[in-house]
Amino acid sequence: MSESNSVLIGNKPVMNYVLACITLFHGGAKEVNIKARGRAISVAVDVVEVVRRKFLPDVKVKKINIGTQQMTPREEGGSPTNVSTVEITLER
Amino acid sequence: MSESNSVLIGNKPVMNYVLACITLFHGGAKEVNIKARGRAISVAVDVVEVVRRKFLPDVKVKKINIGTQQMTPREEGGSPTNVSTVEITLER
Repeated sequence: MSESNSVLIGNKPVMNYVLACITLFHGGAKEVNIKARGRAISVAVDVVEVVRRKFLPDVKVKKINIGTQQMTPREEGGSPTNVSTVEITLER
Repeated sequence: MSESNSVLIGNKPVMNYVLACITLFHGGAKEVNIKARGRAISVAVDVVEVVRRKFLPDVKVKKINIGTQQMTPREEGGSPTNVSTVEITLER
């Protein structure tokens, strides 16, 4: 699947990401990948639920993967930290 | 599956819930259900990752479900709000 069908969740309002997903599906995408890490994971779930329940009832959750990403320390001598990640694949 | 094998994620430190999962598995549980809603969803993913990577490498994610729960308003006349939920089933 091409990377252009991915929506990376940050700290903007939920509706921004909902709109991004809807735009991708309306542009003909069969699958959209929603990726988030850390605190944004709960926003990713919100986005999926709003897309499915309010806008595109024919969209289904195909797959949910969770994982861990190691972050390199910002300062020299700092220890690397782990952050949880989630990837939710929606299909129409 | 019996409800006693469920861990409901709240706002305590991650390690509290990690310990609860490990205790259930050590007590002979084949499956443990981790449930969370709203902002606690990202903590649920943290718990799963810590359990799998640091303590019990033989534990696998069997299933992840996401959904929406309608909250009844606290005051009379308030409108009901929706909150996202997640349920992660771990199996050994």
